[in-house]
Amino acid sequence: MGSMMLGCITDFFTYETTKSVVVKSWSVGIINRIVQLLIISYFVGWVFIHEKAYQVKDTGIESSVMTKVKGFGYHNNQVMDVADYVFPQQGSGIFCIMTKVIITENQSQGTCAELGKNFKCSNDTDCHKHYGSILSNGVITGVCLNSSNDTMGYCESSGWCPAENDQVKIDPMLDVSNFTIFIKNSVRFPLFNVTRGNFLSTMSSQEIKTCKYHPETSPYCPIFLVGDVLSFTDQNASELADKGGEIGINIEWKCNLDLDIKHCLPKYSFTRLDAPFSKNKISSGYNFRFAKYFKTENGTDFRTLHKAFAIRFDVMVTGNAGKFDTIPTLINLVAAFTSVGLGTVLCDIILLNFLKGAKQYKAKKFEEVSEAQIEAYLARSPGSQLSLRPGLKSSYDSGAISFTTSDQPF
Amino acid sequence: MGSMMLGCITDFFTYETTKSVVVKSWSVGIINRIVQLLIISYFVGWVFIHEKAYQVKDTGIESSVMTKVKGFGYHNNQVMDVADYVFPQQGSGIFCIMTKVIITENQSQGTCAELGKNFKCSNDTDCHKHYGSILSNGVITGVCLNSSNDTMGYCESSGWCPAENDQVKIDPMLDVSNFTIFIKNSVRFPLFNVTRGNFLSTMSSQEIKTCKYHPETSPYCPIFLVGDVLSFTDQNASELADKGGEIGINIEWKCNLDLDIKHCLPKYSFTRLDAPFSKNKISSGYNFRFAKYFKTENGTDFRTLHKAFAIRFDVMVTGNAGKFDTIPTLINLVAAFTSVGLGTVLCDIILLNFLKGAKQYKAKKFEEVSEAQIEAYLARSPGSQLSLRPGLKSSYDSGAISFTTSDQPF
Amino acid sequence: MGSMMLGCITDFFTYETTKSVVVKSWSVGIINRIVQLLIISYFVGWVFIHEKAYQVKDTGIESSVMTKVKGFGYHNNQVMDVADYVFPQQGSGIFCIMTKVIITENQSQGTCAELGKNFKCSNDTDCHKHYGSILSNGVITGVCLNSSNDTMGYCESSGWCPAENDQVKIDPMLDVSNFTIFIKNSVRFPLFNVTRGNFLSTMSSQEIKTCKYHPETSPYCPIFLVGDVLSFTDQNASELADKGGEIGINIEWKCNLDLDIKHCLPKYSFTRLDAPFSKNKISSGYNFRFAKYFKTENGTDFRTLHKAFAIRFDVMVTGNAGKFDTIPTLINLVAAFTSVGLGTVLCDIILLNFLKGAKQYKAKKFEEVSEAQIEAYLARSPGSQLSLRPGLKSSYDSGAISFTTSDQPF
Repeated sequence: MGSMMLGCITDFFTYETTKSVVVKSWSVGIINRIVQLLIISYFVGWVFIHEKAYQVKDTGIESSVMTKVKGFGYHNNQVMDVADYVFPQQGSGIFCIMTKVIITENQSQGTCAELGKNFKCSNDTDCHKHYGSILSNGVITGVCLNSSNDTMGYCESSGWCPAENDQVKIDPMLDVSNFTIFIKNSVRFPLFNVTRGNFLSTMSSQEIKTCKYHPETSPYCPIFLVGDVLSFTDQNASELADKGGEIGINIEWKCNLDLDIKHCLPKYSFTRLDAPFSKNKISSGYNFRFAKYFKTENGTDFRTLHKAFAIRFDVMVTGNAGKFDTIPTLINLVAAFTSVGLGTVLCDIILLNFLKGAKQYKAKKFEEVSEAQIEAYLARSPGSQLSLRPGLKSSYDSGAISFTTSDQPF
Repeated sequence: MGSMMLGCITDFFTYETTKSVVVKSWSVGIINRIVQLLIISYFVGWVFIHEKAYQVKDTGIESSVMTKVKGFGYHNNQVMDVADYVFPQQGSGIFCIMTKVIITENQSQGTCAELGKNFKCSNDTDCHKHYGSILSNGVITGVCLNSSNDTMGYCESSGWCPAENDQVKIDPMLDVSNFTIFIKNSVRFPLFNVTRGNFLSTMSSQEIKTCKYHPETSPYCPIFLVGDVLSFTDQNASELADKGGEIGINIEWKCNLDLDIKHCLPKYSFTRLDAPFSKNKISSGYNFRFAKYFKTENGTDFRTLHKAFAIRFDVMVTGNAGKFDTIPTLINLVAAFTSVGLGTVLCDIILLNFLKGAKQYKAKKFEEVSEAQIEAYLARSPGSQLSLRPGLKSSYDSGAISFTTSDQPF
Repeated sequence: MGSMMLGCITDFFTYETTKSVVVKSWSVGIINRIVQLLIISYFVGWVFIHEKAYQVKDTGIESSVMTKVKGFGYHNNQVMDVADYVFPQQGSGIFCIMTKVIITENQSQGTCAELGKNFKCSNDTDCHKHYGSILSNGVITGVCLNSSNDTMGYCESSGWCPAENDQVKIDPMLDVSNFTIFIKNSVRFPLFNVTRGNFLSTMSSQEIKTCKYHPETSPYCPIFLVGDVLSFTDQNASELADKGGEIGINIEWKCNLDLDIKHCLPKYSFTRLDAPFSKNKISSGYNFRFAKYFKTENGTDFRTLHKAFAIRFDVMVTGNAGKFDTIPTLINLVAAFTSVGLGTVLCDIILLNFLKGAKQYKAKKFEEVSEAQIEAYLARSPGSQLSLRPGLKSSYDSGAISFTTSDQPF
């Protein structure tokens, strides 16, 4: 009983390793080492140095963006300041600078004639087809106003009157190019609890106040001239101001926290986000409508409708941070060591097929055992004691030297 | 010296490959090939074709969304247009359509009686428990107004007066179902610098203007009827208009950039985002308060308070793009080739345990060497020259033919 | 022809397994098993239990956040309520609570004197350097106003007049600490179509209405006292109310959908997002400008400019969900089984280099075959029949017992 247990334990604490054939051949040896070198280079160069596989990565960047626009522009004979042209006013990461506005003053609830050639009519029935139209300025009543025998009238609509005429030609506020956008961006990598802001700690207050971002000379200045931003995206400022558009300001944080934290810096890039639509006739540009509401002395409401054309800026923050960690390092080291062995796949193909003496190498690498042999053996010696200790079989190899035996591969 | 160096180099340029046993057995051979076939099928079918492991993926999609709502609705005997019912007005990816509004006109700073049965009182002390209440319309002063011996009064609060009565029953603006939402979405995959918009390039201006989204007949139309969107999410439009709610419009981009770019198309889906709360009594729906501010002739401020019930739409853009790249292809090919060898794990178990002649196979696969043998050998021939060239051992295999030897497994 | 085909098929249905050496040695056997145990522990403990590698993960969480602030504060001798101090009013995931406001009343378009010592001047030329300034309140006209021989004047600017004086000292609305923020957050995991809200289903309406969030006693209450939130982030409420700032409220969902869905709960955490700037003199805090627009009886526009200092709250939702799936389970099981074999790398190094009898083990593990041998053999028997059936070579092993042969390693 005790010895059986010991036997079991002895059997358990064994070590099994593959039996290998060492081929002393210059050709396949060199190929083998070159393949191994390539695999090691891949792991060292790409996996470890380029992809930094020894680091644990935090991609769940937490970011907050505050923006502040400054500048004055003339529009409709008025001086416009930030409170007039920025929407929303809270200085969020997505904001619009209004560059052109078509104003319809003193609208109040009532009925009035539509504008635009689509709504021309000579009698009421002409207007019935517009019932439920969403392209009018109000609900179409089905009445044709101001038509006489020789002149066309316009369909009547009910809603805020007078109707807006958005076909009027207005010069956009080109001063927008001189406006500045100040971006305050702080990011946090929750995994490492590292927080960074987009100002260089080495910049003085005076520098931050007076600098202008430039990709080469001043890449860490948080103040952007709108004109510069538009030119970085190869956009025509006056066309954009006239029709509106959307500009993306991407702030990319790629932080290697194994280095000093001061190397963890933002990288700005700029794109026109609505580029796929910029050439589209029906829907190029960007505009929206809003109203300012007033009350007359006697308490009736009226409003001023604004159709605003604006440049929208989206500040998008992306990034990740990496820091050395034992677990990914170990996993990738093991992967690297294991992969070095993969060279054998290629070398085996060469060795066993294309090399002189391939058949002899095959004979050395492969031992064959067939069902027939096993069955023959089992038939001959059904209760053989030897078969109980099969692992010792190889101990019976003869020691006879056989270099001269001609029917032997070696 | 030189020959030692040469020896080292010769030793270095060797190739080591595992010695294998080839089992010519139908049963285990078939199992082996089936397992290998399964593994290859998995890699070809799932990893390569389904998961497209030969591609490098860009998941950092950059997206911009502009929306425009159109339509007219009657509410409180007024015609409401976009400038009245959309918040915020800039046409961002998250916007609300106000469907019901409770208006409290002409509020100005002062003191007035609270409304609501919670604030009923018969004397001042009844109101003291409400000090610091946030459910009132203003700061509770601790005074009970208008109470007499037989009627209850209401606590006084200081703030914007008169107090809002939000228990009034108002019909929601059901016209909301006929409003249309126009969504302009452009995405960019920064890794490949590919930009796409959600209009088909084959659609004419007229088509885009007049189409309505339908999942089957018109899946790429960017204009959505609010009523349709609500029905896609199985919501009751009139209930939603009455209480408010939140609808998600998901735009999914899954682009295979190995195909023509025109196959990179958006897929729309719709959900009710606040579904977990829709049955909750205390907090179903969606509402918020805002005020319009006015000035009297003599300069005192007054405001109109609005309690707005709204349907909020969140346009969420997700997606990724993939493109053929050599590095992931190589890595996965290597993984596939290596994994084919994993079939041996299963086959070994069958071969060495369940097959007839398992012991003989074991004897063929495993060579045993024990510490005792090594020690015995070392004791016998401590300085043996042979042990210096152990790799040559196998050259001493005898060539004698031994098919007739009965105490030999084969 | 038929037999050749059969031969091919027979050759195809073979099974190749590595020939192994079983080392019966206590030392290396124990090391082997310990290494295997470590590898298994790593897979069981880290990969399967900690990382839950048997699950498929959905990281594309869809989230919607609605917020509602309640509370009253005194500021500028007025009672402020939600409609006055929350921006934007729609109750979105990012919102500001205005805590201090500098009001400039009755601004209208015109020209007026700038304020501030930077704009002091004694004659017009002093003002020319300010042309194009964006730090003024309007467009600098280049005229020096109100200067006499002995007193300095101020440069004139054109725009909204009178100019804003933002140097005035105003007490912030410290009542903000008593405001409450109610957060309604619903999330959806599209892969599993699982939807969750941030209220416990076991909480009654009354509980939800009256509870206050506390990390230990009430971690699932959706109502947050602003003062608590500020203290969780170790911020001074009065300083924050005075200068403004940005607070992040992170809601983390980590859901194991193999457990009951009721364990899928939110976890709240709080940070000061603009922490990197909080000590920065030039740009600490958070403020923005907005205007309320009015019309006089005769129709001219005037406005009230507000410079608002606010605490901005960003509700950020992160998370993922995991659920058992056969594919990742299988892949990781295979990876685990395969990796158990990696222990051989270490054990081989020990066995072949540091163990007593290392050379003998090497002799047993490695069979050597050199180009020279192959060439010698090929020269001797160029057309040998045997070489056509190399796989059978090992069948010719002699059965002679050789335990006593002294020139044999074993």
